[in-house]
Amino acid sequence: MFAGRKIVSQSLRGVRHYTAPLKDIKFVMNEVYNVDKHFATLKETGGLLATPDLVESILDETGRLATEVLAPLNVVGDRVGCTWVDKHTTKTPPGFKEAYDQFVQAGWGAISYPEKYGGQGLPKSLSIVQADMTASACFTWTMYPGLSKGAINTLLVHGSEALKEKYLHKMIQGEWTGTMCLTEPQCGSDLGQVKTKAEPNGDGTYKISGTKIFISCGDHDMADNILHCVLARLPNAPAGTKGISLFAVPKRKVNADGSLGDFNNVGIDRIEDKMGCHGSSTCQINFEEAEGVLIGSENKGLPHMFTFINTSRVGTAVQGMAAAELSYQKALAYAKERFSMRALSGTKNPEKAADFIINHPGVRKLLMFQKAIAEGGRSMIYECAFLADEMFEAEVKGDTKKVAEIDDRLGFMTPILKGYLTEMGLEAANAGIQVWGGHGYVKDNGMEQIVRDVRIASVWEGTTQIQGLDLLGRKILLGKLKPINNHCSAMYNKIGKVLSESSGATRSRAWGLMLATAELQWNTFKIAKNAMKDKESVGVASVDYLKYCGNITLATHYLFMEHAANKALASGKAVEEKAFYEAKVQMSQFVYDEILARNATLKKTMFTPTESIMGLKINDFSFDYTRV
Amino acid sequence: MFAGRKIVSQSLRGVRHYTAPLKDIKFVMNEVYNVDKHFATLKETGGLLATPDLVESILDETGRLATEVLAPLNVVGDRVGCTWVDKHTTKTPPGFKEAYDQFVQAGWGAISYPEKYGGQGLPKSLSIVQADMTASACFTWTMYPGLSKGAINTLLVHGSEALKEKYLHKMIQGEWTGTMCLTEPQCGSDLGQVKTKAEPNGDGTYKISGTKIFISCGDHDMADNILHCVLARLPNAPAGTKGISLFAVPKRKVNADGSLGDFNNVGIDRIEDKMGCHGSSTCQINFEEAEGVLIGSENKGLPHMFTFINTSRVGTAVQGMAAAELSYQKALAYAKERFSMRALSGTKNPEKAADFIINHPGVRKLLMFQKAIAEGGRSMIYECAFLADEMFEAEVKGDTKKVAEIDDRLGFMTPILKGYLTEMGLEAANAGIQVWGGHGYVKDNGMEQIVRDVRIASVWEGTTQIQGLDLLGRKILLGKLKPINNHCSAMYNKIGKVLSESSGATRSRAWGLMLATAELQWNTFKIAKNAMKDKESVGVASVDYLKYCGNITLATHYLFMEHAANKALASGKAVEEKAFYEAKVQMSQFVYDEILARNATLKKTMFTPTESIMGLKINDFSFDYTRV
Repeated sequence: MFAGRKIVSQSLRGVRHYTAPLKDIKFVMNEVYNVDKHFATLKETGGLLATPDLVESILDETGRLATEVLAPLNVVGDRVGCTWVDKHTTKTPPGFKEAYDQFVQAGWGAISYPEKYGGQGLPKSLSIVQADMTASACFTWTMYPGLSKGAINTLLVHGSEALKEKYLHKMIQGEWTGTMCLTEPQCGSDLGQVKTKAEPNGDGTYKISGTKIFISCGDHDMADNILHCVLARLPNAPAGTKGISLFAVPKRKVNADGSLGDFNNVGIDRIEDKMGCHGSSTCQINFEEAEGVLIGSENKGLPHMFTFINTSRVGTAVQGMAAAELSYQKALAYAKERFSMRALSGTKNPEKAADFIINHPGVRKLLMFQKAIAEGGRSMIYECAFLADEMFEAEVKGDTKKVAEIDDRLGFMTPILKGYLTEMGLEAANAGIQVWGGHGYVKDNGMEQIVRDVRIASVWEGTTQIQGLDLLGRKILLGKLKPINNHCSAMYNKIGKVLSESSGATRSRAWGLMLATAELQWNTFKIAKNAMKDKESVGVASVDYLKYCGNITLATHYLFMEHAANKALASGKAVEEKAFYEAKVQMSQFVYDEILARNATLKKTMFTPTESIMGLKINDFSFDYTRV
Repeated sequence: MFAGRKIVSQSLRGVRHYTAPLKDIKFVMNEVYNVDKHFATLKETGGLLATPDLVESILDETGRLATEVLAPLNVVGDRVGCTWVDKHTTKTPPGFKEAYDQFVQAGWGAISYPEKYGGQGLPKSLSIVQADMTASACFTWTMYPGLSKGAINTLLVHGSEALKEKYLHKMIQGEWTGTMCLTEPQCGSDLGQVKTKAEPNGDGTYKISGTKIFISCGDHDMADNILHCVLARLPNAPAGTKGISLFAVPKRKVNADGSLGDFNNVGIDRIEDKMGCHGSSTCQINFEEAEGVLIGSENKGLPHMFTFINTSRVGTAVQGMAAAELSYQKALAYAKERFSMRALSGTKNPEKAADFIINHPGVRKLLMFQKAIAEGGRSMIYECAFLADEMFEAEVKGDTKKVAEIDDRLGFMTPILKGYLTEMGLEAANAGIQVWGGHGYVKDNGMEQIVRDVRIASVWEGTTQIQGLDLLGRKILLGKLKPINNHCSAMYNKIGKVLSESSGATRSRAWGLMLATAELQWNTFKIAKNAMKDKESVGVASVDYLKYCGNITLATHYLFMEHAANKALASGKAVEEKAFYEAKVQMSQFVYDEILARNATLKKTMFTPTESIMGLKINDFSFDYTRV
């Protein structure tokens, strides 16, 4: 239909690769968010460098890297995985290092970082758009530069100038990478229990001692050095989360002239054997009086680390979306070539012994769900990426009011993105197996790997349960409803605008969303009221509340996409692309009928009486087996 | 609390084993279904042999086998898996054969089969109760005798006396096993496309030629011979499902004296590398003019095979329930020993740095969901097992009216059990990973294996999509609503009885269920009405309708369990076991508030307009990648 429509033809058995959905990416950037106009406002933070031509070529080139270089590595990452050699050597899967070298040589790791430290100074959102493609093609490979991103951001915001000068140039160039070291054997969600110690040496450095587990990309052979961002306790630090500090602890010490020195006392004890994500080394790291330097202020390690954690949470939301995208591409191809049974409404493919399964409504429900999460998730993530651009611009301009406003909004959106898209990404990946039937359960076809890989997404970087409490408890209730009230006010305006410009089915959906938003605000108020008398009711509500918000957010993005599609259709410019825009409207109908409808249940279960959940005594969960 | 409450204490890392939930099993048998009375009615089919003492000892001994012998094999099955050696040799994981020998020597494979062929002649339901335990302990091991069960049932119902005499003694003893060979590379759900050929030799035997794939337990080293039940086409057979016949094709030919002869031309080409279920060999079998014998009538292979398929579908429902049970046991143990953060309502474990996570509502929602599926699923499966006992008794007595009645009812219940419990079993297993957090994603702790193993359950033996169409299309609509009307009438009576004997919260839930049942009947009528004008609407509704029925069924069983618990509490006999019965009532509250509430959404989505699903043109599913 379009010149750009690519034809992928592969054998039934064998892994189907990924194709970067550039048409959809460009639609979201250009027609939903008007990215040229957006970049034009980023006067201090590289927006003016991001000319349409440059952006187009970044997208096309990243798409090529993802499709041609990274996608074929996905199965290798899973099958070969990482290999622990000794405490300073872990090997990544064949091809990972070569792909990383290409990425570094193309300067991709550096595009969104300040020119001062060797970056290209382009808007940060562009690196999220790149991650959309690289993560869908090969998520575990993307984790290595992804973790580095978090470490770089942490240094940029909290590091001393000396620390920045020492590490940032090499990290931004991709010569060195970074990690986040939070979890210990006894604690993950509850970082107040961190035991790793930091003892001052008296010269500005510290001896770091302790064991960290589940450290993603904690060791590898892709770069010469790794900077670990480590949470640890100073002597006599207060108990709990208020006594944690953040340290920069390199794998190899760095000499004054920037050259590499001896190995630090940072040893990899083991790498974990996991369900999936085999391409990423998950390390147990033993720090034995390793030399480290404080990042930021003493005992402020956890707030500092949240710079890193928030970067990673958006990265994890990308993981959910990417799983949906990859699984959808593979499921769609199969649904168009596998034939089984005749359609209920009569023969569709008389030349075959049966009809292609894409004709069956049960298969379509699975495919359209995947598509909705991939494309709707993309729009959700890009919105936040562009907001982060605006925040960074406001920071540079010293507009603290705007920074606070956007920070509040991102604080509200991040747990929804992370919690919702990872849960939906898993469901979408499972839907992909279902479309393939028994062939989806066999490793050769690559469908089951997506499920195994994405299963961790709703666990790491804060489980869905933690995201729910963050959203409802920490953000909304501690914020005295301000985040939700601001959100809903903005929604009424935005939906009102769509209403005034729409007709027919789009207008009906806009009204439906208006009502859903009012109901969201009202239900949040009810939860807050209940919470005053019954604190546990917040925990009972939180996960369902997060999903409830997620469904409304997805529906919101589909309304905006549909609205943009209607505009294009009305403009008459898009005759040859009419089908693309009509499909967006069609998908919006699906999302409202099938996904927003899930809130009918969530509206009930978030008000499940506390007694129903807390009434069962701990000893009475089982009478056949238990532990004292 | 009870003498029988076992204490399991194992290290945090390392696999926790399974403990047979004998107390719950006995509660369902004795107090929900009054099994002594039930067995007493089975005068012709072994019920009188099943004395309470014998039943008790079968349960306890099977529990011991499951807990002590099979549970430790579960991880071995996964890690070592099966090994293909040559076309006649496949090795099962270490310990599988020894456990099978114990099972055979104890006579467990034979308990539910006729004494005429060497069985013990006990009611069939007892073997389902055994499978509850063996499948939870090690599902893949259970598949070997499970598949045999299907083959034995098929021969018993459709085989000639000569065929029965030749094979049944050895198969019932467990010396030989059986398989079902349906799927071919080009077809699984749509067996009308089967291509395997059967050519008559003129002496009553046939030459069977073709390739079958995904044959579970298709080859192994646990028994000397394997009888494959193979679907194939006779020369000039009608096209489609009406031209398929069923053949008995042994791995090794059997001489007239019953001794083993040469290998038949049945070769194993490969075993599949799958997401999970590694303990079960999944074979590609090549039949090259292999010698086979017709089972039953020509061209009636598919209806005959349904004897086997229905056995397997109930077995697959057991798989869903078993995954929930095993994951629940492991998640519960962890939730009682892992501490993280303080409870929202204040400190619960002041002696610890944080509270045990079982105190957190978000964790409880996960655990109670698992428990509801395990215990509710058990009651659902046992009901059908006892119905099958009654049907068999009626068959022997020649009561064709009763046989038809029960057959209708089982035909209605089987897709619900299979479709619903496998989908819920996967969700429950995923909940188990979520409780364990990152530790659940690591292979060592055994949580992720359960997810990988159970993922196939909603695919094989007919996908959830097939079950939905079977329930709504084949059973209810083709049956002109009779199955649902009969079901609802029976429900009104049963619920009415509970209503008349209950008060308080139980009575409220009974009213809630009465309304839900009336709504079910009404919604089914609406679907039937829509279907007259729009056949695709059946496909749009079917999976949601199946889950909708499943939630109501689960709630029904909880009402009956709660009612039984209330009776026990009222009887005063159960002072020392009060907590057990109170927990059942508490769980019922959970099921009504959290699981039955899911129908609020399903009631909407089963009426999603057909346009919303079918309106998207096939070529417009993607504009970035596609296949011609």
